[in-house]
Amino acid sequence: MGRLSELFAPETVAVVGATDREGAVGRAILENLQDDFGGEVVPVNPARDEVLGLECYSDVTSAPPIDLAVVVVPPDVVIETLRELGETGTENAVVITAGFSETGGEGAERERRLREVAAEYDLNVVGPNSLGIMSTPADMNATFGPENALDGSISFMSQSGAFITAVLDWANEQGIGFQDVVSLGNKTVLDETDFVREWGDDPETDVIIGYLEGIDDGHEFVRAAREVTDDTPIVLVKSGRTDAGAQAASSHTGAIAGSERAYETGLEQAGVIRARSVQELFDYARALSGLPQPDSNGVAVVTNAGGPGVLTTDAIGDSSLSMADFADETVDALAEAMPDEANVYNPIDAIGDADVERFGEALDVALADPNVGSAVVVSAPTAVLEYDDLAETVIEKREAHGKPVVTCLMGGQRARAAEEVLRDGGIPNYFDPARAVAGLDALARYRDVRERTIDDPTEFDVDRERAREILGRAAERDTNRLGVESMDLLDAYGIPTPAGEIVDDPDRAREVAAGIDGDVVMKIVSPDISHKSDIGGVKVGVSEADVYDAYEDLVARARNYQPDATILGVQVQEMLDLEASTETIVGMNRDPQFGPLLLFGLGGIFVEILEDTSVRVAPIGEDEARAMVDEIQSAPLLRGARGREPADVDAIVETVQRLSQLVTDFPAILEMDINPLVAGPDGVQAIDLRLTVDTEEL
Amino acid sequence: MGRLSELFAPETVAVVGATDREGAVGRAILENLQDDFGGEVVPVNPARDEVLGLECYSDVTSAPPIDLAVVVVPPDVVIETLRELGETGTENAVVITAGFSETGGEGAERERRLREVAAEYDLNVVGPNSLGIMSTPADMNATFGPENALDGSISFMSQSGAFITAVLDWANEQGIGFQDVVSLGNKTVLDETDFVREWGDDPETDVIIGYLEGIDDGHEFVRAAREVTDDTPIVLVKSGRTDAGAQAASSHTGAIAGSERAYETGLEQAGVIRARSVQELFDYARALSGLPQPDSNGVAVVTNAGGPGVLTTDAIGDSSLSMADFADETVDALAEAMPDEANVYNPIDAIGDADVERFGEALDVALADPNVGSAVVVSAPTAVLEYDDLAETVIEKREAHGKPVVTCLMGGQRARAAEEVLRDGGIPNYFDPARAVAGLDALARYRDVRERTIDDPTEFDVDRERAREILGRAAERDTNRLGVESMDLLDAYGIPTPAGEIVDDPDRAREVAAGIDGDVVMKIVSPDISHKSDIGGVKVGVSEADVYDAYEDLVARARNYQPDATILGVQVQEMLDLEASTETIVGMNRDPQFGPLLLFGLGGIFVEILEDTSVRVAPIGEDEARAMVDEIQSAPLLRGARGREPADVDAIVETVQRLSQLVTDFPAILEMDINPLVAGPDGVQAIDLRLTVDTEEL
Repeated sequence: MGRLSELFAPETVAVVGATDREGAVGRAILENLQDDFGGEVVPVNPARDEVLGLECYSDVTSAPPIDLAVVVVPPDVVIETLRELGETGTENAVVITAGFSETGGEGAERERRLREVAAEYDLNVVGPNSLGIMSTPADMNATFGPENALDGSISFMSQSGAFITAVLDWANEQGIGFQDVVSLGNKTVLDETDFVREWGDDPETDVIIGYLEGIDDGHEFVRAAREVTDDTPIVLVKSGRTDAGAQAASSHTGAIAGSERAYETGLEQAGVIRARSVQELFDYARALSGLPQPDSNGVAVVTNAGGPGVLTTDAIGDSSLSMADFADETVDALAEAMPDEANVYNPIDAIGDADVERFGEALDVALADPNVGSAVVVSAPTAVLEYDDLAETVIEKREAHGKPVVTCLMGGQRARAAEEVLRDGGIPNYFDPARAVAGLDALARYRDVRERTIDDPTEFDVDRERAREILGRAAERDTNRLGVESMDLLDAYGIPTPAGEIVDDPDRAREVAAGIDGDVVMKIVSPDISHKSDIGGVKVGVSEADVYDAYEDLVARARNYQPDATILGVQVQEMLDLEASTETIVGMNRDPQFGPLLLFGLGGIFVEILEDTSVRVAPIGEDEARAMVDEIQSAPLLRGARGREPADVDAIVETVQRLSQLVTDFPAILEMDINPLVAGPDGVQAIDLRLTVDTEEL
Repeated sequence: MGRLSELFAPETVAVVGATDREGAVGRAILENLQDDFGGEVVPVNPARDEVLGLECYSDVTSAPPIDLAVVVVPPDVVIETLRELGETGTENAVVITAGFSETGGEGAERERRLREVAAEYDLNVVGPNSLGIMSTPADMNATFGPENALDGSISFMSQSGAFITAVLDWANEQGIGFQDVVSLGNKTVLDETDFVREWGDDPETDVIIGYLEGIDDGHEFVRAAREVTDDTPIVLVKSGRTDAGAQAASSHTGAIAGSERAYETGLEQAGVIRARSVQELFDYARALSGLPQPDSNGVAVVTNAGGPGVLTTDAIGDSSLSMADFADETVDALAEAMPDEANVYNPIDAIGDADVERFGEALDVALADPNVGSAVVVSAPTAVLEYDDLAETVIEKREAHGKPVVTCLMGGQRARAAEEVLRDGGIPNYFDPARAVAGLDALARYRDVRERTIDDPTEFDVDRERAREILGRAAERDTNRLGVESMDLLDAYGIPTPAGEIVDDPDRAREVAAGIDGDVVMKIVSPDISHKSDIGGVKVGVSEADVYDAYEDLVARARNYQPDATILGVQVQEMLDLEASTETIVGMNRDPQFGPLLLFGLGGIFVEILEDTSVRVAPIGEDEARAMVDEIQSAPLLRGARGREPADVDAIVETVQRLSQLVTDFPAILEMDINPLVAGPDGVQAIDLRLTVDTEEL
C-alpha cells in the first residue's frame, strides 16, 4: 500500500465544520460517518459543544489526534484549517468546501495558497470542491452523498461528484460494489495519478475505474498507469472528447481539456482501456472485476436460438475477438450430445427445446476445446429453460474450466433474478449480445496490455552540445522559428540530410555545387519567407555553370517579394532521385498535458487531405516507432505496393526514434516538422525542416 | 390498409392441428387465442371432436368460413391443408410447421410446392417455420410464445422467432407496447417488403422495426421502403453484417447473406435507420414512436451536474446533432432565473441544488429559443430533486413547445418510477447520456429521410440497339468477358472515349494514326490477355512513322506470351495529357439482392490500398451521382486541391449516371469497370473497359 493508505483506513476521522443543522453538508457527512464507520468520529466546530450526540471540539488543535480531516468550513477559513491540521500532525484531509479555482479570481488565488500549505506540511489533500471519499473495507462514508457503496473490488475516482451520486444509486440497485470511491474535486494536491498508484498497490482493488475531464500531468500519468496495468486494469471515461465536449469541460471545474489526439494516444500507451459512456465503463468493469483474461481470442457461442446467435457472431466480428474454430473432437462430442437439428459448429445452436442440461453439456464441451479462449452464453426465454438453474450451471462450468464466460440471458423479470445468481458467481450478464461481447473484448484487451513489453528508447550516440548551440542561435537571432538554416540540428542527431550547405555568396555557391555529384537544388533561406516555392525561391536541377546566376536570381526574387526580409543565404543541396522515393513527414507537437507528441505520415495529400497519420507520446523505442510506420493506411506504399521498390522502412523507423530523442532532450522545441523526409530504397534524407522553439527555455 | 389487413384483423381464426395435448404447439396457440381474442376461434383436427372446450372440425372444408388459418399440422400435410384452405376461400394462413428449406433436400422441395399452391390460390402465407403473429388492436395472439404483447404503436417483424420471445419478455417489463408482431419464418410467400407496405398504410403504426438476416428482393424493398418512410420510420437490425455473422446467418433458416456493402447502401437509400444491436433498435424505436422530429439540429442540454453535462455534450459531438447556440435573450432569461453559480450557456448547469421548478424554468426558456430544435434533460439524483415531479414537468414543457425532449434521469429505483411517468407522457428515458442523444439523433435522421427529395434518373438519349448488338457479339464469340474491343458500348451510351479504333493490320493502324493529332497509344486487344502492360502489350507515345513496326511488335509479343490467344487486333488511340488529369474508376457489380451496385473512386492506390470508394444501388439521378463523387475522402483532389486545376466533376457525374442507365437497361451486364476514366479540366475520357456478361441473359 502506498502513502495514501491511511486516507482510506483512518482510525479517527474529524469533520471540521460539523453541524446538526438540517440540510447542511456538515451534518450529512457526520451522519454518513456515524452510520457505519467503526473508528472514532470527531466533530469540530467552535460554535457547538455537541453535535448529533458526539462531543464537539472548538478547533483541531484541541481535538484528539486526527488521521483524516473532512473539511467543510467556509472557503475563507480552509487554508487556516489546513495549517492547523498540519501543525497538529494530521496527514490526510478531504476538502469539501467549494469556491476555489472553479470560481476564478479570488478562488484561484485561494487554491494556490491551498497548494502551498499542503506542500509545507506534506498533507494529502483530496479536493477542494469534492463530494468526499468512501472506503467499504473501513465502512467509511466520508461524503455528503445520499448513498453508501456496497462492498466490492472496484475502486472508483470521479472528477464529478454528481457522477458518483448517480452511479452509486444505480450500482446499489444492480448489486455492483466498490472498494474505495474518491470525488477528486479540483485535484489541487492529489490527482488521478496518485490514486492510480495507490490502488495499483492495493491487493483488494481488482479494477480501477474513473471519470475524468482532464489529466493534469499526462506524462506522469502514463508512467504510473503503465506500471499499474501490469496487475490491475484501468478503465476510464475521459470526457471532453469532442470539440463541443472539451469546451463544456473547460467551463466546468476549470479543467484544461488538452488535445483529444494526445489523450487517445497517451491513454492507449498507458494501457488504459477507454470507455465512451457510463454504460461501457461498467460493462467493462463488471467483466474485469470477476473474470480471468482469456488465453486466446477464439470465442465459443452457445445459444438456444439462431437469431441471437447471429447477432453475437456479428458482435464478435466487430471486436478484437474471433469465432473459435472447433477441433474435430469438439464437433463430434457436440453432435453426440445434441439433437440432429442442432448446429454443432460455432455458434452452437442447441435449439429452442434446449434445457439447462443440454446448455451445460454444450458449454462444457466448448470450454474444453483448446481453440476456445472464452465463451458467451446467449439465450431466449423458453418454457423448458429455467434461468436460475442455467445461471448455476454456467458458473459451475466456468469455474471448472478456468476460462472467462459472460452471458446474455435475454428477457425481463426472470433474467433479472438469474442475473443476481450470476453476479454472485462472478459472471456479468448483459442485456444485449453486443454488450456481452464488448465485456469479453475488454478482458482480451487487458490481457494484451499485460502481455505487452514496451522496449526502452534506444540511446543513440548524438552530439547534444552541438544541437544546443544550433538551437541557441535562434535566441541570438531573436526568433522562435527555425528552418533549413538549422539542418545541422538533424545532423547532430544523426538524421541524414542531403549533401550541401547554406552559402551567402554566389562564388561559394559554385564551389559547393562543384563538390556535389550532378545538378543541385537551390533554395532561398529566410525565416521571413515560409512558402519558398510560391515566390520562385526554389530552383531544381541547376547545373554547376548556372549556379552563380541562380544565386543572384533567388536573392533578387526574395528582395522583391519582401524588401526587409532577413536573408540568411541560399541553400545548395544535392538533388535526390525523387522518382524512386516516397515523401514522408516526421514531426512533433508538444502537448500541454502529455508532452512531445510524435507524428508520422506520407507527405502531401496523405497528410493534408486524407489525414492518414500516426502519433505517439515520446519517448518511444523501436517497436513503437515501427508501429507508427505500420499503422498508417497508406503504409503499403512504403512496402512496395503497385510494383514500386520498397522504401527503407528501417531508416524511417530510426529517424522517428532519433527525433524522439531530440525532442525529449530539448523541451524548448515546441513544434518540429521534417517535411519531407524522403525515403528511398536505401535510406532516408531530410529535405526540409521547420521548428518552433521556446527561447525562454533555451 | 393493404391487402394484408385481414391477416391482422380476422373475425374467425382456425387452428389447424389444434390439440389439448400438454406441451404441444397446437395447444399453446389455441390457448393464446382463447386468452383474449374477441372473434371466433375454430380448432381443426380429424382426431378430435372437442379441444379445450371448443367444437373441433375434422378438416377445413367442414369448418365455418375461416379468415385466418394457423397451420400446425405435420410437414407432409401442410401443402394439402393450404390447398383445402384455398378451395374453401380462406385467404390468410400462418404456417407454424417447420421442416422446409431450413432443413434442405426434401424440405426445400416442399417449400417450392408451398409457394406454388399459395400462388395458385392467391394465399397470404406467413412462414413456414414461424412462431406466429400477433395484433394488439384485435387482442390476437396467434403464436405459441409465452408472452402477450402490450398495446402500442410499434409494429415488429422478425426473422427469428426466439428474438420475438426474448424481446416481448423484456418489453413487457419495460412497458413497451406493439401494434402488430410477425415472426417471418422462411418468408416463402410474405416477406419484409409486404409487411413494410402493409404497416406503411396502417395509421396506427408509428414505427416499423425489424430483425432481418437477409432481404430477399433488395431492389423491391428499397422501392417500398422509400415510399413508406415518407410517413413511417423504419428501424432495422440486419444481422450478418460481419463476415463471421454472415456465415452464421446463412446456416440459420437458409438466408442468403448478400454483400454487407450492398445492404448498407441499399438500406440507406431506402431511408431505413439501421440499428446495430437490440438495444439500439429499441432506443431508436422509443424515440420515434412518441416524439415529433426536430426542426433544427441544435440541442439544448439541461442538467444539474457538470460531469454528466460534459458527457452529453460529447455524445452530441459524436452525432449528427450540434449544441444549440443560445440567442442572447435566452442567456439573459436563464441568468435571471438561475443562481449566479449556474452555467447559463449550453449545456445549462442548473447546479446541484436545482429543484424541479428550476429545471422546468431552464427547460422552458431553452425550448423557446429558435435555435433549439430539441433538448436533453440529464440529472443526477439529489435530495432536493423529486424525479416523479421532474418527469411531469418535462412532459408539460415538451408538449407546450412541441419540440422533442428526451431524458437521462440517472440513478436506480427512483429513476425507474419516473421512467414510467415519462413513458406515459411519450418521453423515452435512457440510462446513459450517450443513449439519450442517440435517441434524439434517430429523430433528426428520420427528419432528413422525410425531407429528402430523390431526383429521378435522367433519361439520356442513348443508342440502346447498338449497345445490344455490341453485347451480343460476346455471345457470338462464346465468352462472357469483354474488354476494349467493346469501347463502342460506351460510345453508344454517350460516355466519351479517346479518338482511335481497333485495327487488324499494320497499314490500317498507320491510317488511323494519321487521322489523330500527335503521337498515339497502342495496345494489344485480346480477351485472353488481361494484364497487357505486364507482357509489354502497351506502347505509349508512338509516332506515325513507328506505328507499323509497333503493330508487328505488339502482335509478336502477344503470340510469344500465349501462342493460342485470340487476338482481336491492336487499339490505336489518341494520347491524352495525363499530367493535368486525374484517374478515376467508375464501375458496377451486380448484387444478388439489390441489383446493380455502382462504384466510384480515384484510381490506383486510392481504390486498391486506401479503399476510398462510394457506392449506390442503380438507377440513380444526378444528385446521388454527385453525392458519390463528393463523399469519397480524396474528393478534394478533384476539386483542385494543392494547386491542381479542378477536374470536370460535372462530366464525371454525367458518366456515372450514363453507366447507371446502361447497367439498368442491360441486366445481362454482371460486372463492369471503366478504369481509368480520365478526368481532365474539360471533360472525361474512358481509357479502358472490362465487363462480364451473362450470355444467357442476352
